[in-house]
Amino acid sequence: MRILITAGGTSEKIDEVRAITNHSSGKLGKAIAEAFLTDPQVSVDYLTTRQAVHPSNESLDMHLIETTQDLESRMRQLMTEHTYAAVIHSMAVSDFTPDSSVTMEELQSVIATDPADLAQAVRRRTQTRTEKKISSDTDHLVIILKKNPKIIQLIKELQPDTILVGFKLLVDVPMLELLSVAEKSLEKNQADFILANDLAEISGEKHHGYLINRNHKVKEAHTKTEIAELIKQEVQKLEETK
Amino acid sequence: MRILITAGGTSEKIDEVRAITNHSSGKLGKAIAEAFLTDPQVSVDYLTTRQAVHPSNESLDMHLIETTQDLESRMRQLMTEHTYAAVIHSMAVSDFTPDSSVTMEELQSVIATDPADLAQAVRRRTQTRTEKKISSDTDHLVIILKKNPKIIQLIKELQPDTILVGFKLLVDVPMLELLSVAEKSLEKNQADFILANDLAEISGEKHHGYLINRNHKVKEAHTKTEIAELIKQEVQKLEETK
Repeated sequence: MRILITAGGTSEKIDEVRAITNHSSGKLGKAIAEAFLTDPQVSVDYLTTRQAVHPSNESLDMHLIETTQDLESRMRQLMTEHTYAAVIHSMAVSDFTPDSSVTMEELQSVIATDPADLAQAVRRRTQTRTEKKISSDTDHLVIILKKNPKIIQLIKELQPDTILVGFKLLVDVPMLELLSVAEKSLEKNQADFILANDLAEISGEKHHGYLINRNHKVKEAHTKTEIAELIKQEVQKLEETK
Repeated sequence: MRILITAGGTSEKIDEVRAITNHSSGKLGKAIAEAFLTDPQVSVDYLTTRQAVHPSNESLDMHLIETTQDLESRMRQLMTEHTYAAVIHSMAVSDFTPDSSVTMEELQSVIATDPADLAQAVRRRTQTRTEKKISSDTDHLVIILKKNPKIIQLIKELQPDTILVGFKLLVDVPMLELLSVAEKSLEKNQADFILANDLAEISGEKHHGYLINRNHKVKEAHTKTEIAELIKQEVQKLEETK
């Protein structure tokens, strides 16, 4: 079977030298790829960034991207060319991308003259500028970001029959809140599984995660290797019932 | 002689999972360290980030930092413990660091009630929140950034006798503008040299740079290796006249 794994974190340009990045080492994606590749029947397309750690196995097909836009177009391309038994979407994708940047003085002057649709008014203001690197000659800089498309929602649109494993990372929340947010994400994105995890419970190889399925069953794992093994087993089990 | 080299780019936290990063591969800093280390009389403290490429030479002392604040405290510490013949500050340092983040709706409500000192009013608003990860349930997010201290200005304050090599990177500007901005940086930061370069003239090992000194002399180089060699020669020449 052929599977698609995404890993690492996207990076969104502010200007030619600055970007907003989503921290994600790519280690969990690497562990997942290595777990699947112990099965010689599996071939893997691996979508990641230059900065992330990469699986050592040479038998996978590596595709490097940078921004959420890159991710979207590469994913559309791969999912048009190939049929995947499963898509494991562990990449941390920016919810927002920089739309415009102004100094606080510029923002104040936009507010004074055109207070209704601020995002649009600020964008208009920046279009009159010529510099490619934002001036640093101000005390406060303001970056306005706009929503990115939800990449995970593309997956079942493009291939309704693929097994989709999504990921939900929260920061230092009660376990019940984590599981309930993960269930909502499962419904909204038509995922078959969501791996729910909390940044406060990740350090090095130690990685606490809950794998939730469509029947509200939850399985627990405590390291990246355990999570990778669990995802592989559950995906293969579901694949066999199809 | 003992020298301090900084390389790579700082990264400033927006929240627990997002950051603003300055793109810098660290390749030029690596080339500079390797040029100096061909001289067995030279020992190098190397201040960089985990993401940057690292020099292979094991004889240097590596110090890893992440944010501009880390850089400042580590630099103060090293420059208190050691006397450096030269400091070569090639690290791309964020001019700004995130101060607060709000949804556009929150910003509009702050503007309506408290329009005078927006930066402060927004900061106050965010302090009433409890989430550690910013909500993505909005069309536009607004990040307000405040100015970072100028790290380069610390160097001559701490060690007036060290030879300071600063760097100025602009994006796609005429050569005369680049040189004039570099001269201003040389004056303002009491640097002995500024390496002026333009992102539009950097790709792979090809790297066009101008090294400007206090007598307004300009020397040119065309690759990272040439720049590294030029900096090493000029620093050693100046050191010998002291």
